[in-house]
Amino acid sequence: MTDLVPAADAPTVELSAVKAWWRAANYLAVGQIYLMDNPLLTEPLRPEHVKPRLLGHWGTSPGLNLVYAHLNRVIRARGTTMIHVTGPGHGGPAALAGAWLDGTYSERYPDVPRDAEGMRTLFRQFSFPGGVPSHIAPVVPGSIHEGGELGYSLSHAFGAAFDNPDLVVACVVGDGEAETGPLATSWHGTKFLSPVTDGAVLPILHLNGWKIANPTVLARLPREELDALLSGYGWDPLYVEGSDPDAVHAAFARALDRSLDAIGRIRTAARSGAATGRPRWPMIVLRTPKGWTGPHEVDGIQVEGTWRSHQVPLAQVRENPEHLRQLEAWLRSYRPEELFDADGGPVAAVLANVPVGETRLGAVPHANGGTLVRTLPLPDVHGYAVKVDEPGATMSEPTRALGEWLRDVMAASAARRDFRVFGPDETESNRLGAVFEASPKAWQGPYLDVDRHLAADGRVMEMLSEHTCQGWLEGYLLTGRHGVFSTYEAFTHIVSSMFNQHAKWLYESAKLGWRPPIASLNYLLTSHVWRQDNNGFSHQDPGFVDHVVNKRPEVVRVYFPPDANTLLVTAEHVLNSRGLVNVVVAGKQPSPDWLGIDAARLHCARGAGIWEFASNDEGTPDVVLACAGDVPTLETLAAVGLLRRHLPDLRVRVVNIVDLMRLLPHDEHPHGMPDKEYDALFGTDVPVVFAYHGYPWLIHRLTYRRANHDHLHVRGYKEVGTTTTPFDMVVLNDMDRYQRVVDVIDRVPSLGGKAAAVRQSMLDMRARHHDWIREHGEDMPEISGWQWAGSALPPK
Amino acid sequence: MTDLVPAADAPTVELSAVKAWWRAANYLAVGQIYLMDNPLLTEPLRPEHVKPRLLGHWGTSPGLNLVYAHLNRVIRARGTTMIHVTGPGHGGPAALAGAWLDGTYSERYPDVPRDAEGMRTLFRQFSFPGGVPSHIAPVVPGSIHEGGELGYSLSHAFGAAFDNPDLVVACVVGDGEAETGPLATSWHGTKFLSPVTDGAVLPILHLNGWKIANPTVLARLPREELDALLSGYGWDPLYVEGSDPDAVHAAFARALDRSLDAIGRIRTAARSGAATGRPRWPMIVLRTPKGWTGPHEVDGIQVEGTWRSHQVPLAQVRENPEHLRQLEAWLRSYRPEELFDADGGPVAAVLANVPVGETRLGAVPHANGGTLVRTLPLPDVHGYAVKVDEPGATMSEPTRALGEWLRDVMAASAARRDFRVFGPDETESNRLGAVFEASPKAWQGPYLDVDRHLAADGRVMEMLSEHTCQGWLEGYLLTGRHGVFSTYEAFTHIVSSMFNQHAKWLYESAKLGWRPPIASLNYLLTSHVWRQDNNGFSHQDPGFVDHVVNKRPEVVRVYFPPDANTLLVTAEHVLNSRGLVNVVVAGKQPSPDWLGIDAARLHCARGAGIWEFASNDEGTPDVVLACAGDVPTLETLAAVGLLRRHLPDLRVRVVNIVDLMRLLPHDEHPHGMPDKEYDALFGTDVPVVFAYHGYPWLIHRLTYRRANHDHLHVRGYKEVGTTTTPFDMVVLNDMDRYQRVVDVIDRVPSLGGKAAAVRQSMLDMRARHHDWIREHGEDMPEISGWQWAGSALPPK
Repeated sequence: MTDLVPAADAPTVELSAVKAWWRAANYLAVGQIYLMDNPLLTEPLRPEHVKPRLLGHWGTSPGLNLVYAHLNRVIRARGTTMIHVTGPGHGGPAALAGAWLDGTYSERYPDVPRDAEGMRTLFRQFSFPGGVPSHIAPVVPGSIHEGGELGYSLSHAFGAAFDNPDLVVACVVGDGEAETGPLATSWHGTKFLSPVTDGAVLPILHLNGWKIANPTVLARLPREELDALLSGYGWDPLYVEGSDPDAVHAAFARALDRSLDAIGRIRTAARSGAATGRPRWPMIVLRTPKGWTGPHEVDGIQVEGTWRSHQVPLAQVRENPEHLRQLEAWLRSYRPEELFDADGGPVAAVLANVPVGETRLGAVPHANGGTLVRTLPLPDVHGYAVKVDEPGATMSEPTRALGEWLRDVMAASAARRDFRVFGPDETESNRLGAVFEASPKAWQGPYLDVDRHLAADGRVMEMLSEHTCQGWLEGYLLTGRHGVFSTYEAFTHIVSSMFNQHAKWLYESAKLGWRPPIASLNYLLTSHVWRQDNNGFSHQDPGFVDHVVNKRPEVVRVYFPPDANTLLVTAEHVLNSRGLVNVVVAGKQPSPDWLGIDAARLHCARGAGIWEFASNDEGTPDVVLACAGDVPTLETLAAVGLLRRHLPDLRVRVVNIVDLMRLLPHDEHPHGMPDKEYDALFGTDVPVVFAYHGYPWLIHRLTYRRANHDHLHVRGYKEVGTTTTPFDMVVLNDMDRYQRVVDVIDRVPSLGGKAAAVRQSMLDMRARHHDWIREHGEDMPEISGWQWAGSALPPK
Repeated sequence: MTDLVPAADAPTVELSAVKAWWRAANYLAVGQIYLMDNPLLTEPLRPEHVKPRLLGHWGTSPGLNLVYAHLNRVIRARGTTMIHVTGPGHGGPAALAGAWLDGTYSERYPDVPRDAEGMRTLFRQFSFPGGVPSHIAPVVPGSIHEGGELGYSLSHAFGAAFDNPDLVVACVVGDGEAETGPLATSWHGTKFLSPVTDGAVLPILHLNGWKIANPTVLARLPREELDALLSGYGWDPLYVEGSDPDAVHAAFARALDRSLDAIGRIRTAARSGAATGRPRWPMIVLRTPKGWTGPHEVDGIQVEGTWRSHQVPLAQVRENPEHLRQLEAWLRSYRPEELFDADGGPVAAVLANVPVGETRLGAVPHANGGTLVRTLPLPDVHGYAVKVDEPGATMSEPTRALGEWLRDVMAASAARRDFRVFGPDETESNRLGAVFEASPKAWQGPYLDVDRHLAADGRVMEMLSEHTCQGWLEGYLLTGRHGVFSTYEAFTHIVSSMFNQHAKWLYESAKLGWRPPIASLNYLLTSHVWRQDNNGFSHQDPGFVDHVVNKRPEVVRVYFPPDANTLLVTAEHVLNSRGLVNVVVAGKQPSPDWLGIDAARLHCARGAGIWEFASNDEGTPDVVLACAGDVPTLETLAAVGLLRRHLPDLRVRVVNIVDLMRLLPHDEHPHGMPDKEYDALFGTDVPVVFAYHGYPWLIHRLTYRRANHDHLHVRGYKEVGTTTTPFDMVVLNDMDRYQRVVDVIDRVPSLGGKAAAVRQSMLDMRARHHDWIREHGEDMPEISGWQWAGSALPPK
């Protein structure tokens, strides 16, 4: 426990530029919240200079400005390559002030120059219609972290630090955010961060004491408890506390110097081999008043140092002359005339605290990952393909085939270190274990003899926290690298809200000319709804896809490769893509191989297509059997086998969909099919019996505008399940082969009398299955041993 | 830091019954995973006695059995009222073993008696088709905690303890689960738990060292770090470590006695007034080998004490004679012949460790909350109604009106203490602050002079963790109490996955005759998508409803009250309901009052209906304007005003939907409308122009089977937004009044020439708005000052 109130004999650091910069940034933050004119206060403040709607967050801004000011100083003094992540992301005024003082804001947005007119625009546009958001967002140069939702700053910071050995990621954690679950576990990131091959994360826990309307948990802990907590998380905290600006400046400068010295010592020791094991990394605890330097009292009530300063301390400035007077006094307290010259640009005393070129926090390339991202060296998937002489004659575990390819992606990127695989303790369980041949899992020790596949510099990331995995991956991608997140399908909902924020980030970033696209965020959802033999109902939820397709079509893609080779082709495609969220749903259990690798490539390129080998419609089907997903495809093909055997005259077309977004109209999604193409696949007046991996109504939502929607009948998961056999799961949800035959018969009245007998035999089979599994505890042999036997079927 | 290896001179506790019970429970756990016959090993084990599919989790089971055994002892010895929450919920075999030994399992399921035949059934049904899940689930007597998804055990435990001053909630936290974010922050629950009015939570952190395939973070911490972490979280940890059963039994017994002694002292001190402030509650750290007492090596590889014991240590029992031999030796190592009599019932030496009656962990009423829940004393909402002389003539803040009613619900339940309001720091911001007049927020201190509305026994729960709020509420409801969770609409996605598990719990529970329904989980989603003036795009996501409607229709309801009075009526309805998840979406901003309280009650009872005051169709509309949600209703009524003024001959019908599930077909949801009723509202061949609060395609998904679906045109949020004015938000998403008039004109070709001019004037207004807000920063006066003026309109 180390306090950093400056000792009388402490060597003093020259901080006049830091202090001037801080005053300037505070002035700019207040100006953004309040002013639409008279930015330099060249005339007395009048109501019409003030925005009609006062929207923004002052409370956190002075603290954020303090951090930015001091980071600038050490970057200049040490030449450190540094990015900053700001957890209290509603402190948009602070981040924007910093970037404008940097000069980077004006470089990105030449219509907002670093002069009086630019300052006026900077102020006016903030939280203004057609302007910039009040939170830290993609528009802010130097940010990799959307500030809207709390909880992810520290996992983003770790993600940025992985495989960037020279980088220091300064991360402000607000004491509000610190109460969230995702943040509370992300402190453990040091257990996975190599001091040799990774950069450093420097957390700055900012205790300003208050949330919107409540005290914060951490700010009210006795010091001993707070220190125990942070030490217990593995950090070495330094404390800076106070409300006197000069004292806090001095103490914070010392804390930052000591932290960077400690980081330097840790690196040297680890990289020289003098130290092994997990170091105790430094962090800073900064305790300053909320709304610091703002109005202490308003209308006789304390505001500074309380939750009342969270947003807009003076709320009636246009109407209340006293508020107007207080605002002017507040603004003038920063002495803008000393900080900005007659043209409105920062004076030399302020600019003296601005780093140069790409070391500026607003300009550092790591915070604009699209400028750094390189094409991954992907091995040709042909070399990993499953051999398919005949469709459905052999079985493979799709994710196991994928694992072998990912192993070699991992190997090919070993020197570059720009590819990682993330998952909550499930890489092996999801049958991707081959990757361990190319890289172990990251783990800083201690190690036991019995351990397998653990090493300090591993690039497979496993912590039992979906939030942390997702946060790490986002940080890794946002700084210009690549990755895959493999997780249990049902539990992807844990990160639904994180996905939201990342998708919104991608969509907004794509509008900015200066942010080239980063690598896509690739989900591999496996251990899916249909194969929870071991876990049952609680592990069954295929709805993450439903959630994803609510986001902007420009940035979301969903794939259901039905077998091993289509999974390989899909994986190659998504790892080559940019600026997207790709959701790939695939099984890990043995399932039939349908397509050879060349056919798989063609099928995936089309995204949806007729499977000729299983169709006998000769262009005029009586019925279309559509399927999306591995298990639906299996049951569909089994149903086709039954139909061909029992009703050989029925003309059946099989359509398989890999790229779900193909189902959407052309004008609603970049992958959407034109009606003509859709109609060519599905017909316009033919019954379509569709088996879908997830909730069936999603297919209706995607297709309700299509010509033959009235003829569409969809089976899928209808939220019925338990611990049972694989086939019982499809029976429970009426998606089994027998029910599919019944569905066909019920929709093709022309089949006539013979069909009735077939129909009954199908229902009998369902009943027989029911009794069988309850007696034997496993599926009937004719089901578990089933295979497609296209060539043995009646000729087309 | 206290170790509890027994000192030589320690007073010994008689543990023979505990040890016998533990062996019996371990035997039963192994039997459930493996056996379908020969349960008592009365004959040599043969392959056909073994299940064909071996599914279950052994690794955690012996530790869970140890805890259960010792809880039994202290319940017997002290008469403590206790429930247990088991974080490692895949340890189903342990919980089932405990309940069967209790006798409670057989009381709930008479077909599984406590004898040899019952044991056979117990074994056979486990993870067997038609049987019981492998995880702790509603079927398990004594459980309030679904074991499928990790992270929520401790927040559930706190929720159970609130307002149960005599209860002790023992909560096993697995070291895997401890890595999740939700669990990592839930340790802070003590900051909100009153030692006077609440019960105690006794966490037992079980470090068995391994997850599925990895070491756990907490198990590998140096002892000093672990102790600092847990102390920093505010606990007083006691350590029990070992692999020798006798030594661990002795140490754990001491730890439990010391913990309960400490809890007793804390209660006495707090309740006598001798102590104030937050106590340092005891907890236990239990470190035992994973898969303890199971096969140490299999096929020459260590299994016990490693991740390999996570599920089924011996995997080829039917095929591999050596595995079969090992299984038999393992089972016989527990000496079943000493534990069960010839009839298969537990012998007296085992039963000596079973508590009596309702103190049994499987029988304690708190773990079956439906048996305890009482009707809330709800004040008549008439007394809180907004006076509405004329529709749309006045404005109210709906949640503020609700807050006054909730205040009096809070007051009326003050003595009973069975109602709480939960929210992540947003009760005041969501304008429910009136509740503080009846109860402060829970906070154990320390307090500052500037604090408002904080007290140790408060029943408003605010922590900046949606996960914790939801977990607390679930625990509170599951133990028979009531509550409301108010939160920002967009961030409800943070708890999407928790909602899943709770909805599944409710659905499964309803199938069991012995679990009466608990009070519904009520969400109030406010600060919604349309009014993020201050926060913008990151805070805009109305898709939680889409997620909710994927769950079983039996347990989900969604309401969009359009004004203050309908919100009051809806709130009364949901707080009286049972066994559901109710989602209520309502605004906090001033919005028009449409219905008087009696009209509101009628409208809500119908769930959807024609608003005659705004309609002039006289039974034969040219167009139906439908709306769901407060902002869509406002824009719809404004559009009707424009239509009546500019196109007075057009016959317009307004349909407002409060209960979204009314839109579904009758056979798909209990609230679904029969086609006849639906057609009567919406017509069968009339254009319907629908304005919906959320993503528009949800309305299509709900209505695609309806007769006039081809005539349905829906506007809603299409994922476009920023920090802007309220009216600009609806313009950006084409849901504004002008666009709605255009939509009508485009769909009623009979309107002819005059309509073209009106159409253009509407587009001109949109353009004018665009320019206006960019210049002035606020909405045009004719929009922000707009009010419905039904009586001033041309007569119907």
